[in-house]
Amino acid sequence: MEHYLDNSATTKVSQKAAQKALEMMTECYGNPSSLHIKGMYAEKELENARKIIAKELGANTDEILFTSGGTEANNLAIFGAAYAKRRTKTKVVVSAIEHSSIIEAAEKLKSDGFNVTFVQPDSSGVVTVENVMNEVDDNTSIVSVMSVNNETGAIMPAGDIFTAVKKKFPDVICHTDAVQAFGKIHLNVKKLGADLLTASGHKVHAPKGCGCIYIKKGVRILPRQFGGEQEKRIRPGTEAVELIAAFGVACSEFDIDNNLKKIEKLNTYAKQKLSQLDGVVINSPSDALPYVLNISAGRVRSETMLHFLEDLDVFVSSGSACAKGKPSHVLKAMGLSNERADSALRISFSKFNTEEDIDALCDGIGRGLATLAHN
Amino acid sequence: MEHYLDNSATTKVSQKAAQKALEMMTECYGNPSSLHIKGMYAEKELENARKIIAKELGANTDEILFTSGGTEANNLAIFGAAYAKRRTKTKVVVSAIEHSSIIEAAEKLKSDGFNVTFVQPDSSGVVTVENVMNEVDDNTSIVSVMSVNNETGAIMPAGDIFTAVKKKFPDVICHTDAVQAFGKIHLNVKKLGADLLTASGHKVHAPKGCGCIYIKKGVRILPRQFGGEQEKRIRPGTEAVELIAAFGVACSEFDIDNNLKKIEKLNTYAKQKLSQLDGVVINSPSDALPYVLNISAGRVRSETMLHFLEDLDVFVSSGSACAKGKPSHVLKAMGLSNERADSALRISFSKFNTEEDIDALCDGIGRGLATLAHN
Repeated sequence: MEHYLDNSATTKVSQKAAQKALEMMTECYGNPSSLHIKGMYAEKELENARKIIAKELGANTDEILFTSGGTEANNLAIFGAAYAKRRTKTKVVVSAIEHSSIIEAAEKLKSDGFNVTFVQPDSSGVVTVENVMNEVDDNTSIVSVMSVNNETGAIMPAGDIFTAVKKKFPDVICHTDAVQAFGKIHLNVKKLGADLLTASGHKVHAPKGCGCIYIKKGVRILPRQFGGEQEKRIRPGTEAVELIAAFGVACSEFDIDNNLKKIEKLNTYAKQKLSQLDGVVINSPSDALPYVLNISAGRVRSETMLHFLEDLDVFVSSGSACAKGKPSHVLKAMGLSNERADSALRISFSKFNTEEDIDALCDGIGRGLATLAHN
Repeated sequence: MEHYLDNSATTKVSQKAAQKALEMMTECYGNPSSLHIKGMYAEKELENARKIIAKELGANTDEILFTSGGTEANNLAIFGAAYAKRRTKTKVVVSAIEHSSIIEAAEKLKSDGFNVTFVQPDSSGVVTVENVMNEVDDNTSIVSVMSVNNETGAIMPAGDIFTAVKKKFPDVICHTDAVQAFGKIHLNVKKLGADLLTASGHKVHAPKGCGCIYIKKGVRILPRQFGGEQEKRIRPGTEAVELIAAFGVACSEFDIDNNLKKIEKLNTYAKQKLSQLDGVVINSPSDALPYVLNISAGRVRSETMLHFLEDLDVFVSSGSACAKGKPSHVLKAMGLSNERADSALRISFSKFNTEEDIDALCDGIGRGLATLAHN
């Protein structure tokens, strides 16, 4: 039996979402830009998914644009906002613990001549209002702070940050990468005060290759891709209709409150069992989103433990999947010792997980600590 | 019964490709960047598809990078090459009858200060070696000429053009948008002399949202997207594994010679039947790729005829799907009268079409001409 506990890397597509994608590929396969009815049917599915996702975010339907995923949406937000305001504002403020698609985009802006600041988190891995406000000024075009950190589950006060920013500098564009929050906690773009928000399909039981960006009505960002008329010309190219329709179905299956309760229980159960193992420490803050649990296990290097667990059909991550085993910039920013960062494991849950998965995990880590500790 | 003759807009996904996508979504759903075996399985599928596509193009496996489709690949080629050479070369030469994702990217470069030239085709819609060579000079970074035109099927002498360019200016990067040629004629990047080539999945019975770019070893282009380590950091972001695996399967089903013979017959049959209808003229050159047949039908506006045919379950296009009913820049560049361009229809075939589809089409156009001509 498989124990998949790497759901922040990607999730299994739900049966209903997968069936929808299949139906789109073989039956409703028209090009949404085609003028005939086969195109119209495809367009209808596209608009239906857009409506579901918009509703989930408290947005208007026409404020949601589809992208090829979170990375593209994050790039579009950062470059699109920075370049839209380039003539008058050249400062960009992002948190230091963002996903690589924000960090690297910001680094590129830096090399293009922008003044880029990376705001450090506190020792619990949370970016504070104060630290952000110390950096934002009249010359700032965009502030980007994620909703939930992908490595620790730490919940950022994005709403408070955006409120403080807007109060003092109403023209600053506020973006949140909500990839790890979407579908897991209730998000409302209006309450958040976000101008831009990123979400991704494959973290919420939809297929890979599909995400979206919320762009508040009236907020102008520049496109990164040029071509046809699709997605208001902000993101041209034939839409991945089968993925988008599946994304819509996956969102319609959200059951945020019940799932959160379930995951909270699993997380608590995991922490309890792990606390019985010598040498295991928790890196996630105690008030983190329970979907992610970051721990350090003894002096065993992350990858060694990961592969030990893999042999027991338990799948976890040594950090972000996108970093492929590199030392975590998030744990480093939290001030963790090298030893603790080098033995970090990310356990991440989905609604499909059970206590059996946790038992297998804890049993595996226990055995791993006993066998591997002196390697 | 449905008669889908809009295969240059998009195609029905083959059963095998769709089943592969389904399997990837629900079973082999790991993130290819994950270090555990569920990630490795997904990565293996990715590399398998890459191998199949590379072989199809006569390329090395590591010269193929996946994108979200043709539009992204075309943008990456044009911007990536122009910006990589920006310090020393500022001229960009593209044909005037390219897909909008090339034309609009080139227009953007123009507004960014590049010297962009659009090379006009001859009256048959073919871009000649001579016309291109008149524009290419020492200051040119990239030449982009499509392999087959999406509106008329006209085959461009891309290989001859690239040979002539390379002979005189070996440093110029040569790109061909092969979206309408890939899987339909034998393409070999070495014979073509291409440095960059674009292909798309959904034109060849793979799903929408997936394409690729061939980048010749040693040719340096700059990325447009920033983030993780995926696709050699030229195109980061979690790969759309289910689409890519399906793309590989669709390519493994290619039967270029037999399908071309079949489509040639259908095309000839269609031309024969259409020639019996008063007022129908053929816009595609006689030596066009038979997968596309562009005609003008009497004085009936394209959209009027398109919707008339749609009621008979016959689906064609009034031009490129991406142009959504706008007047065709391709037919205009060929010097067609407004009247003829305004009544243009694009009929485009796939291996799934039969003579019955052609009968329904010709019968429909005949009835349309009789009913609509005086509107």
